[in-house]
Amino acid sequence: MKGLVYHGPGKKAWEEVPDPVIQKPTDVIVKITATTICGSDLHILKGDVPTVDDGRVLGHEGVGVITEVGSAVTNLVVGDRVLISCISSCGRCAYCRDGVYSHCLGEEGVSGLGWLLGHLINGTQAEYVRIPYAETSLYKLPDTISDAQAVPLSDILPTGNEIGVLNGRVGVGDVVAVIGAGPVGLAAIMTAQLHGPSKVIAVDLDAHRLDESRAFGATDIVQSGADDWKQQVLALTDGLGVDVSIEAVGIPATFQMALDIVRPGGTVANVGVHGESVTLHIEDLWISNVALTTGLVNTRTTPTLLKLVEQQRLAADKFVSHTFALSQIEEAYDVFGRAAETKALKVLLSAD
Amino acid sequence: MKGLVYHGPGKKAWEEVPDPVIQKPTDVIVKITATTICGSDLHILKGDVPTVDDGRVLGHEGVGVITEVGSAVTNLVVGDRVLISCISSCGRCAYCRDGVYSHCLGEEGVSGLGWLLGHLINGTQAEYVRIPYAETSLYKLPDTISDAQAVPLSDILPTGNEIGVLNGRVGVGDVVAVIGAGPVGLAAIMTAQLHGPSKVIAVDLDAHRLDESRAFGATDIVQSGADDWKQQVLALTDGLGVDVSIEAVGIPATFQMALDIVRPGGTVANVGVHGESVTLHIEDLWISNVALTTGLVNTRTTPTLLKLVEQQRLAADKFVSHTFALSQIEEAYDVFGRAAETKALKVLLSAD
Repeated sequence: MKGLVYHGPGKKAWEEVPDPVIQKPTDVIVKITATTICGSDLHILKGDVPTVDDGRVLGHEGVGVITEVGSAVTNLVVGDRVLISCISSCGRCAYCRDGVYSHCLGEEGVSGLGWLLGHLINGTQAEYVRIPYAETSLYKLPDTISDAQAVPLSDILPTGNEIGVLNGRVGVGDVVAVIGAGPVGLAAIMTAQLHGPSKVIAVDLDAHRLDESRAFGATDIVQSGADDWKQQVLALTDGLGVDVSIEAVGIPATFQMALDIVRPGGTVANVGVHGESVTLHIEDLWISNVALTTGLVNTRTTPTLLKLVEQQRLAADKFVSHTFALSQIEEAYDVFGRAAETKALKVLLSAD
Repeated sequence: MKGLVYHGPGKKAWEEVPDPVIQKPTDVIVKITATTICGSDLHILKGDVPTVDDGRVLGHEGVGVITEVGSAVTNLVVGDRVLISCISSCGRCAYCRDGVYSHCLGEEGVSGLGWLLGHLINGTQAEYVRIPYAETSLYKLPDTISDAQAVPLSDILPTGNEIGVLNGRVGVGDVVAVIGAGPVGLAAIMTAQLHGPSKVIAVDLDAHRLDESRAFGATDIVQSGADDWKQQVLALTDGLGVDVSIEAVGIPATFQMALDIVRPGGTVANVGVHGESVTLHIEDLWISNVALTTGLVNTRTTPTLLKLVEQQRLAADKFVSHTFALSQIEEAYDVFGRAAETKALKVLLSAD
């Protein structure tokens, strides 16, 4: 089969790789019908994720049809159409039993990490993929949900919801700011509305993304390049700061911005993938009654989000800005990598 | 009257100062019967808290008897014996109405901070003190609670409980580590037990404090000077880290220690007063599903803790290691400042 293979920082190719095979009784093989590219894939290509080996097929998002099941799999059968979760979790270890699937201790992971696909094992940017722990890592899809609606449920919608909105404890009437209106930031903006905030403020450098964020539910927008961006945000509150500040970029400047606008008693929920350390001004922060949360998505809310998509309460397909054939993935990477210019959000890659 | 006056970094004196007078209708004047010295007072004397002016009477903990009441005070009368809360809060501003008393916006504060006594206005290390917002900042004391039992309720017990234990979300069966077994750390150790943890591990450099922590409820102790201190802590868990890690020191090294031992899904509750920034390894932490909390105590749980002391479920007087006359306060500062040597916890200063 063909897959998009990582060959060290800056290098990738759509090339022939061995077909995946069942390795464990709990595995299934899925024929990919749709996949996409994540900001994390770009981080990998920048060399930010050294745990990814040369030769790895990338991708941790996708939809497909099961073509083969391991001997221990009882609730999935060949022909099932499934959503692939970005987190593969054994369902049996201490963390899984506690709902912290992102840190699954199953034998396929390293040091307790449930992000396997396109990271520690071959991923979904390929014609076929092996899914370990299939029964606890796949979700059957109803026919009423299209591939374009389903793909954002692999990662960005549960990430925005769990690591942004739920970690941030967004509540009724809250003022929420989301720093960074990329796909994950927009997912936080979209899912925040499930919790009844009074305002959701999108903060970004990019005027186009800010415009677009309104379609995802942002009530207000602030251009972060403006000198008075902070005053603009505070003016949208009672002057004291936002209740919840969601960081969805992953650089030191935006991390500090998220802290700068939160009120005492509020929460900064970090969603961004960071490549370098930050200076934490704990000498000011110790007294500030702020909670800072971090995390990799557990995908605990994926079933709920699936239901909301099915009920047309979450317009998940809004994220898809570009569509390509799977074999055009290198072109799609180019378009996604130049998002500021191409205005790409999620690029949908469909099997030919 | 006499009071302990701050005269800039390193300088203080027990000297004659003007008697406090009622300045606002919501004030009362309290004759101090007992006060104590806090680690924060030592921070002030080190110059770590530049908002304290030369000439300020220090102290934010104490017990006394009301000698005068402002015209708007209706539920307190001359002769009432009261606990003085370290937080003075107006009860009417946006933060107070939200229970975030620590950031009271009342006119006596600066930029939303409810720590007034011995900080922004004259404090309790004196013969008399003016208490602003008296009805929302004082608690009437039953006769069954002694001064020695009451004084730890001004600050350290609610701080340990709210900023350590409650922010840390200590729950039944949790393994809790408390880094720093000074008075506030011991208060966290003591109040953690109200929430049913399976283990409370005291971590400190000082062997005497570790020994003492057992009397406050530590089930296990780890000497933080040991090369394998972290392995010792992990060995007291299922190997994956503690559920709650409480930082009760306030230096970069202990802040990192608190992060080093927490498990994914766990919480680091910072209680320590920090004087310098730290490097936050968000490049590792972003994926770790950890919450970090900070805060100044709101004293919301003071009434509950008072009841528990009255019911003899919290042995608050255990904190008092030394007793002095109020006029001996300079000697008491010396003893408290050399705690490692003198084995001081809280020094009780009683009016002559």
